[in-house]
Amino acid sequence: MSEEEKAILAANEAFYQAFANNDYATMETLWSSGTDIAVIHPGWSPLHGYRAVMDSWHRLLSAPGVTPVLCSESRVYIMGQAAFVICTESFDETELVATNIFIRENDGWKLVHHQSGPRSQNSHAALAESVH
Amino acid sequence: MSEEEKAILAANEAFYQAFANNDYATMETLWSSGTDIAVIHPGWSPLHGYRAVMDSWHRLLSAPGVTPVLCSESRVYIMGQAAFVICTESFDETELVATNIFIRENDGWKLVHHQSGPRSQNSHAALAESVH
Repeated sequence: MSEEEKAILAANEAFYQAFANNDYATMETLWSSGTDIAVIHPGWSPLHGYRAVMDSWHRLLSAPGVTPVLCSESRVYIMGQAAFVICTESFDETELVATNIFIRENDGWKLVHHQSGPRSQNSHAALAESVH
Repeated sequence: MSEEEKAILAANEAFYQAFANNDYATMETLWSSGTDIAVIHPGWSPLHGYRAVMDSWHRLLSAPGVTPVLCSESRVYIMGQAAFVICTESFDETELVATNIFIRENDGWKLVHHQSGPRSQNSHAALAESVH
């Protein structure tokens, strides 16, 4: 694995650590503040722009304690100064799949977008077959 | 809107045209063949690599006739030689949200990844609140 891939996977891992620890202060440092950003939480409409994205994280991470999220099966795709990671998110018994997009900034790889959605739920297996 | 944004939106629109027309031959030309690619269809596990991705499109587009897919509310995010588009996909009465990632190649912007998942379905609104 290249140093670049390791750095991107570390940024992805830091994202899930901040998520799991309900650590909004760290979460804020992991996203790009110099580029336009977006997020699609599962079942939500897309949120566009730094304020909307960070407000959503503030809301989601404002509960005390921890969030039972684990990230696994991460795969990195590099596109020059941008990259994305595809991974599985496990929340107790719920499995989701996510795409996390990063750009390389002076102080490291920063998130610019996150989309997460359900995997292999019966209703959506049927949905996938019928519409997609 | 910049010429670059117009070109990326045109590539995104061509993707949904090929999808709607069950036009696998065109679909194949819209994806990068020089870079590693991936896809997450709604409810499916991620597919990695050119062969797996194109096989999935071949399967999904092999039905005769058309697929009732419409793309709307597209927003472009440019990251140098890479870009992504967030948009709404409507299939009859089902709404999904998608992230489509592109890279700039010699012959234009090519898809490298597509993730689509449900929007605002009751079960997933609850899921988002509870786990994400």
